[in-house]
Amino acid sequence: MESAKKPDPTILIIFGAAGDLSWHKLAPALYDLFKQHWLPKKFKVIGLDHHDFSENKYRERVRDGIERFARHKAEGDDLTEFIKCFSYRRADFTDDNTFKDLSQLLESAAKEMETKPIKVFYLAVPPDFIKIITDQMQRAKLGQDWEHDRIVFEKPFGRDLKTASDLNNRIRNIFLENQIYRIDHYLGKETVQNILVLRFANILFEPLWNRNYIDHVQITVAEEAGVGTRGGYYDHAGALRDMVQNHLLQLMCLVAMEPPVAFESDEIRNRKVDVLRAIRKMDKNDIHSYAVRGQYGAGWIHGERVKGYRQEPEVSEDSNTETFAALKLYVDNWRWQGVPFYLRTGKRLSEKVSVITIQLKPVPHQPFPPETGQTWKPNRIVLSIYPSKGIRLICQMKDPGLEMLLTTADMHFNYSEHYSQEPPEAYETLLLDIMLGDASLFMRADQIEAAWKALTPILEHWESARHDDFPDYSAGSWGPENAEALIARDGHHWIVLPLEDVSHPKEHAPKKG
Amino acid sequence: MESAKKPDPTILIIFGAAGDLSWHKLAPALYDLFKQHWLPKKFKVIGLDHHDFSENKYRERVRDGIERFARHKAEGDDLTEFIKCFSYRRADFTDDNTFKDLSQLLESAAKEMETKPIKVFYLAVPPDFIKIITDQMQRAKLGQDWEHDRIVFEKPFGRDLKTASDLNNRIRNIFLENQIYRIDHYLGKETVQNILVLRFANILFEPLWNRNYIDHVQITVAEEAGVGTRGGYYDHAGALRDMVQNHLLQLMCLVAMEPPVAFESDEIRNRKVDVLRAIRKMDKNDIHSYAVRGQYGAGWIHGERVKGYRQEPEVSEDSNTETFAALKLYVDNWRWQGVPFYLRTGKRLSEKVSVITIQLKPVPHQPFPPETGQTWKPNRIVLSIYPSKGIRLICQMKDPGLEMLLTTADMHFNYSEHYSQEPPEAYETLLLDIMLGDASLFMRADQIEAAWKALTPILEHWESARHDDFPDYSAGSWGPENAEALIARDGHHWIVLPLEDVSHPKEHAPKKG
Repeated sequence: MESAKKPDPTILIIFGAAGDLSWHKLAPALYDLFKQHWLPKKFKVIGLDHHDFSENKYRERVRDGIERFARHKAEGDDLTEFIKCFSYRRADFTDDNTFKDLSQLLESAAKEMETKPIKVFYLAVPPDFIKIITDQMQRAKLGQDWEHDRIVFEKPFGRDLKTASDLNNRIRNIFLENQIYRIDHYLGKETVQNILVLRFANILFEPLWNRNYIDHVQITVAEEAGVGTRGGYYDHAGALRDMVQNHLLQLMCLVAMEPPVAFESDEIRNRKVDVLRAIRKMDKNDIHSYAVRGQYGAGWIHGERVKGYRQEPEVSEDSNTETFAALKLYVDNWRWQGVPFYLRTGKRLSEKVSVITIQLKPVPHQPFPPETGQTWKPNRIVLSIYPSKGIRLICQMKDPGLEMLLTTADMHFNYSEHYSQEPPEAYETLLLDIMLGDASLFMRADQIEAAWKALTPILEHWESARHDDFPDYSAGSWGPENAEALIARDGHHWIVLPLEDVSHPKEHAPKKG
Repeated sequence: MESAKKPDPTILIIFGAAGDLSWHKLAPALYDLFKQHWLPKKFKVIGLDHHDFSENKYRERVRDGIERFARHKAEGDDLTEFIKCFSYRRADFTDDNTFKDLSQLLESAAKEMETKPIKVFYLAVPPDFIKIITDQMQRAKLGQDWEHDRIVFEKPFGRDLKTASDLNNRIRNIFLENQIYRIDHYLGKETVQNILVLRFANILFEPLWNRNYIDHVQITVAEEAGVGTRGGYYDHAGALRDMVQNHLLQLMCLVAMEPPVAFESDEIRNRKVDVLRAIRKMDKNDIHSYAVRGQYGAGWIHGERVKGYRQEPEVSEDSNTETFAALKLYVDNWRWQGVPFYLRTGKRLSEKVSVITIQLKPVPHQPFPPETGQTWKPNRIVLSIYPSKGIRLICQMKDPGLEMLLTTADMHFNYSEHYSQEPPEAYETLLLDIMLGDASLFMRADQIEAAWKALTPILEHWESARHDDFPDYSAGSWGPENAEALIARDGHHWIVLPLEDVSHPKEHAPKKG
């Protein structure tokens, strides 16, 4: 495929090149892009980290990550050829010389490429390094060319409105907003990208997509994994910061946003910010009616005994951190007035599943006699992100047979049924978009801040008031009872309805440290 | 299955018991009902015909029909037991004694059953016999018990408004309307029955189901078969009478009708009549803008040379009868004003397929840039009746991959994917409904007449003006060019889109003579 949109010559500079993200996600995604002919011919990666790796050792690590996690298998010598574009520098990010050296290295690389390349500075580092590295870049005058230089941040982006706002102010003092790419890898997922196509390239759904026809919306992002090796970070974050502020609110924005005038980066992000700004402010005296937290204790997952959160490495023995959060949000605008959005996420839940369920209202008049409708269920539009990837419409049909009986059946679209190729991994999409300068799928400063703002009353309440009953759910369950009560008070229940019998493409277990 | 709705003891009297319909459809359907425990324990069939069959010979013919065409296979002796309820009388329908004998036979059968049974008089005879048999029944005082006696008519029911109206008046002079069951076997088909469930048990579709969102509707009932052995009848009927007046207009009613207050026989039929009455009257000087006829010449079907219509047995050598009809109809009411309904049917077409396609309007604003939309196609709701049975929503999705490209994909519901059991044959449904006294799926007098009335200008025009270019389509094609022009003038084209890769349950090739 030779596309007109192929990126210009690019140098990718990875801070934290020896880390898990680089090994598990970035290197494999780059290789997959390479195999699909999406990388520019002139392409270099400069990896920087504090490890005393030789270039060969670094390349071996890159190769290992690719062989394990890339979608494409290496053929012949192409992987050996490919990893030659990776080079490594041992680096102390607090040392000015690191950045002077990098500056010289970039100059000579540009000369070698005989062009002015795109330079992507990718901060695959813990949040503490953001200030250090960006300050150093400013001093070394790196990333100052707003046409060619781009800078990429991973989550977490702040830990509340104030810290996020401070961080935004700092980096926008050094770079222009349109140079900045804040990653929410959920937005790179194929089925997530498809939400806007489904809504705005079809007339079938948008007429129903409002308070007249939608009863409520549920967004579940459930993890089976525990906190793993991330206890040190996680115990100071919790589910609200780690998942809700970014992934779940972004999914909610895609479901709730108004139609964009054009499919352009800032237009789409404007419409998303509109949603975040319209989220009803919670009364701080009534947080428990809108937000539930939980923490897992020991339990069983697939027949295996797993420990409780407080027994995980680097987690405080009396930790008050939530590993589960369920929220009920309202969007105060004409489209959504009165329609609850229920969000929940948690670790060590019963299964790993990401799904958005849009439940429609009942028909205004049911002409079928009661005896036909014993199994009547509401219509639902199910957007399934993981494990199955697809869309499912839950409808009522006539049960085939001689009696007029209604039955619940579904119309569905599964990626795996329709396409023989696996869809790209999120990081392929995101890395390509960065190189192409398309920021549609990245978080703008005001999105980040609006998301924090919406959650501030909960964050403050949960920090100020200890939860006395932690742990309050067993590993392998669906979370604390309060979460059931939250939604049951409105006459609903949580729905998990992945598409059936789907042989979905492999999805790598989350191992990111 | 022991249902509360099982029919009361019943005697089924078949006039024309030696004919194809009895052999091919009625006997197998009765056996299938028996196997599903839907027949009452006290059940008898009295077959009457002019053939000099012995009772054994008749039962052998019943057995043969069941073995060939029933959905259920005979196990052990149950078929042998079952056919014992069939008895046979040689009968001359013009002879009063036939009906005196029948009357006595029914009395003694009722005595034997020790109850007052439901009596179903089934006229499986050519139309000329209707007057003869009903007159005889009146003289013999048969069918006069409006609570227990039902009388069943097969199509054709008249050959124009006048003859149908005369026929209705005659039989309503003898029987009450609620004793009369006029069969349109299309209405017994599972997927046809599901149309009302789909529309009125779900909130997903009805908000779109009107002129604001629907661009046009297409109904195709295409046959691969030629006129076969039916030339004698067909050459005096033609496609408009044989297919459009009944099957196609009834399908159109199901798509176009307003929501019924209740799922009750007369309520549903009232709403259907409303549609027929709202069909815009054609200007007799402009028939060609709304109706196209065709007649097949010789051609090829599946690599086999087949003859033209005029060479078929019992067909006139210079026949002016249409074997193809395509119509464009408007429904003049609030819901459908300005939405064309395109109907077409024909013999010796490219494939046997029955499908309703509801094409939606484009989105009001397309935010995706032109380069994403090269393959953009309109949304369609496809109700597939044959060969696949199911529903398909044709949508735009994101083509999986790194570029934002729109692609056409579908969400679908196939009976064969969802249900291991074959759905019942139409005649099972219809025979059971007659025994239960549910006339929902049968044609009321005013429906028949309203359907004829809507077609009167075309019938008159086609009869008065010979078509000079017959034959004008080759067997194995999709009909005459004029039919393409009819729809192309509005910027559309005929769509045939059966569900893909569907292993549908066996459907018997039409062999009815």
